[in-house]
Amino acid sequence: MSLGWKMVGVSTLLYLLCLGSVQAGKLLVIPADGSHWTGMKPLVEELGRRGNQVVVVIPEASLSMGPSEHTTTLTYPVPYTKAQMKERVPSNLEALFSVDTSTDTAKFVGFFFTLQMLQNLTVKNAESLLYHEDLMVKLKDLEFDALLTDTFEPLGTIVAEYLNVPLIYLQGNHPCDVDLLAAQCPGPASYVPRQMTHFTDQMSFWQRSVNTVRALLHPAACRYLHTQADKIASKFLQREITTVEMMSRAAIWLMANDFTIEFPRPLMPNMVPIGVISHNNPKPLSEDLEEFVNGSGDHGFVVFTLGSMVSELPEAKAREFFEAFRQIPQRVLWRYTGVVPKDAPKNVKLMKWLPQNDLLAHPKAKAFITHGGTHGLYEGLCNGVPMVMIPLFGDQGDNVQRMVVRGVAESLNIFDITSEKLLGALRKVINDKSYKEKMMKLSAIHKDRPVEPLDLAVFWTEFVMRHKGAQHLRPAAHDLNWVQYHSLDVIGFLFLVLVTFICVMLKTCQFCFRRCCRSSNKKKKE
Amino acid sequence: MSLGWKMVGVSTLLYLLCLGSVQAGKLLVIPADGSHWTGMKPLVEELGRRGNQVVVVIPEASLSMGPSEHTTTLTYPVPYTKAQMKERVPSNLEALFSVDTSTDTAKFVGFFFTLQMLQNLTVKNAESLLYHEDLMVKLKDLEFDALLTDTFEPLGTIVAEYLNVPLIYLQGNHPCDVDLLAAQCPGPASYVPRQMTHFTDQMSFWQRSVNTVRALLHPAACRYLHTQADKIASKFLQREITTVEMMSRAAIWLMANDFTIEFPRPLMPNMVPIGVISHNNPKPLSEDLEEFVNGSGDHGFVVFTLGSMVSELPEAKAREFFEAFRQIPQRVLWRYTGVVPKDAPKNVKLMKWLPQNDLLAHPKAKAFITHGGTHGLYEGLCNGVPMVMIPLFGDQGDNVQRMVVRGVAESLNIFDITSEKLLGALRKVINDKSYKEKMMKLSAIHKDRPVEPLDLAVFWTEFVMRHKGAQHLRPAAHDLNWVQYHSLDVIGFLFLVLVTFICVMLKTCQFCFRRCCRSSNKKKKE
Repeated sequence: MSLGWKMVGVSTLLYLLCLGSVQAGKLLVIPADGSHWTGMKPLVEELGRRGNQVVVVIPEASLSMGPSEHTTTLTYPVPYTKAQMKERVPSNLEALFSVDTSTDTAKFVGFFFTLQMLQNLTVKNAESLLYHEDLMVKLKDLEFDALLTDTFEPLGTIVAEYLNVPLIYLQGNHPCDVDLLAAQCPGPASYVPRQMTHFTDQMSFWQRSVNTVRALLHPAACRYLHTQADKIASKFLQREITTVEMMSRAAIWLMANDFTIEFPRPLMPNMVPIGVISHNNPKPLSEDLEEFVNGSGDHGFVVFTLGSMVSELPEAKAREFFEAFRQIPQRVLWRYTGVVPKDAPKNVKLMKWLPQNDLLAHPKAKAFITHGGTHGLYEGLCNGVPMVMIPLFGDQGDNVQRMVVRGVAESLNIFDITSEKLLGALRKVINDKSYKEKMMKLSAIHKDRPVEPLDLAVFWTEFVMRHKGAQHLRPAAHDLNWVQYHSLDVIGFLFLVLVTFICVMLKTCQFCFRRCCRSSNKKKKE
Repeated sequence: MSLGWKMVGVSTLLYLLCLGSVQAGKLLVIPADGSHWTGMKPLVEELGRRGNQVVVVIPEASLSMGPSEHTTTLTYPVPYTKAQMKERVPSNLEALFSVDTSTDTAKFVGFFFTLQMLQNLTVKNAESLLYHEDLMVKLKDLEFDALLTDTFEPLGTIVAEYLNVPLIYLQGNHPCDVDLLAAQCPGPASYVPRQMTHFTDQMSFWQRSVNTVRALLHPAACRYLHTQADKIASKFLQREITTVEMMSRAAIWLMANDFTIEFPRPLMPNMVPIGVISHNNPKPLSEDLEEFVNGSGDHGFVVFTLGSMVSELPEAKAREFFEAFRQIPQRVLWRYTGVVPKDAPKNVKLMKWLPQNDLLAHPKAKAFITHGGTHGLYEGLCNGVPMVMIPLFGDQGDNVQRMVVRGVAESLNIFDITSEKLLGALRKVINDKSYKEKMMKLSAIHKDRPVEPLDLAVFWTEFVMRHKGAQHLRPAAHDLNWVQYHSLDVIGFLFLVLVTFICVMLKTCQFCFRRCCRSSNKKKKE
């Protein structure tokens, strides 16, 4: 049920919220757009289905957000349209294909450009909701038990602070690792690679140096990223406050990733590694798709998408792909809406949209060409399909490294991709059996878990609603300042004690020595 | 089925081990004695019940270990008897009551005495098993999928290293926090109190200083504790090896504690906080006990035990307890086998053994006087009974602090206990409703979990058997030396770069300044 705010009477809402069993909780959801919503939607719907009263607040215009089942959707007006949002994407992407982003310097520059770009982008809706007085007053009146949101857009965080309700994050990768900072989670720079470095947990001395610099810079980077958010929050809440400070009050962090792919690192007790909430179970293919993928017999087929945002390529780049596909015995399903050369090979089927998960689940799927977005990555992993990965932006470069280092994928750079390179990578992952074997093992480990991700996420969200937070999981680290946390005052004190002790010892020795000398001199004189 | 090794034919064993479904695993269990076995036994039995082939290897003489259901028990001879073991306990305990162990210095001394005492005690069985050639050869032949053991006695660790099978620990509190060290888990000394300090996570400056010193000393303390174990292992495995090094290869640490009581601290992904494996569901009391506990009407009753090892008290101390109990309206059930004064109050029932969990689960249980052992603590917590705690040794002093700081218990010192102090504490926890209320809240949080502790422990043990370890959860920290882990080499390098940069800048400025001066001088001269 999608309802513009103006259309919903207060009584209707209150009625909706009072329905259900006494045990059920009242949850406010403020999601972020794009793949963030894709990851959160199944959780939100399941919470509603279980009888909780779930209110999802979204802007009137968004790329992917919309009504969800078993929930109440409220919208608020924003000063842009969906069409305007869509227009911006291709122009931003064009730059991606013309720059080599694989060097350490380029990654560093890219990191700061990302922060700069996100600084405004992530708060584009904030004031539209915060200053929508009617809606905010009503949200306050509804007395929610908890607020579920995302760290990517700080709007939910500010609303939770304003409404004074326990905060739950569904958290993927964050450009400046705000989870480490806000949850006070240790992440030794020697083996915990920072976001957008593309490093693994096995780093060379140089990589460890770069990673240490990044780790030292990240608190400042987080402050920089949230410059706009901090201003908006301080003005709205009428007191000086930072986004990281508000985030540090989170009751639970639902970490939407899995150590099958992530590098093992410390976690705090309120960071629950739920895994990635799975997509719908694969469905059988349509008749024409089934016929197409079977067309190459045992050679099988290749699935190729670059995510929901990229369905076109510059003509020259596209030609390299067509050229490579011409030379493989597999058929190829490609989500592509760009220019098609006249002599396009016949083993390639171009589609505006393709049922990615259903295709990857087909027993004849031999390889998956992907940009390394989180959802595609886990769909490939679940179905045990080796990958050729072409990272474009954001966390994709890091994701790619995680798969390559486990021997289940080959990585290519979109900047200098050629048909030969693509062909080499494709032949490798298809014909070298080790890729498939390792992927199947990884897939088995990934799927072998005590609780399904969705169930675990539901449990902890309902736990927070039941107990009005998760105070017993909150580390005392939050009550310490930086000096105290790192025991610098204690180290100084112990150093002082040690120095005093040594001085006293030296003085005593000196004194004894003099006394001895004096008495021996006396004896000599005598 | 308890079978002395000599009584078991190899064919019988092999037959037993080949039974069950193909999915089932082969698990070797080498438990530690006392309450360690009490905690591990339900897990071992459940694993056997589920069709896994479980072989438990124990010494012929032990305080509490014995045959368990659905498992094969093998015993090996040891150079002492159960009677001799039992004799040692009272003489060790007598010293406890005559020393004040509440000062920081006493705790420090106590810590080192504990390490010294445990150094030999924890390896008393090691050589008896390791050099029992027949048994060791057969254990090797049986090709186990995993070995479940305890960090308290290093014997299981050495056997796992010898047999080269994945290692699983069921881990409670360890005197020198070997889990932090061996699992490479960060534990900032500023808010993670070290064992046997009796500190909470909110420490004063002095406490943080003491805790930092303890944190710095713990690696050395662990080496000291394992001096004998290291010697035995190096000799047996015929190469230089330390116990901590072997422990660091553990696939999974089943952390048998719960953050309802523990102070929140970082965990590694292979440390699974399973909670405490629950004891049997409470059963109704026997007729005479039911009659006794109902005898004081709504005043209810008090349960008093000092654990399985202490059922006597020095006469003078016991008199203080009797005197206090005389003055309360509650009835008291006390596990006590010591001297009874002639005028013992009639509201006290003395028993050789009492059904602790069944009594605590009774709705009329008003308070629990306990030494603060882990099992009793969690039984009290599960049943929501406020406590008067009298710690004796080991981790009990720490356990007590955890309950006191949460407002659900009062603590007394056995050294200077008087009937007045006991009376005051008892009246407080019984009559001040906040103790009961807080305990009920804590109990509700403790019992609200996504997976029951036993099921979670079973899952992860079977996971390790299925996948021959849990390599994907092993942090790369294990591949770094101390200098690399703490990035000291990188910090040195970055410092050097900074100094060089500053020097170059200064020299450049100096050069420019001189050039300027020279040219201005020239101009002046001209």
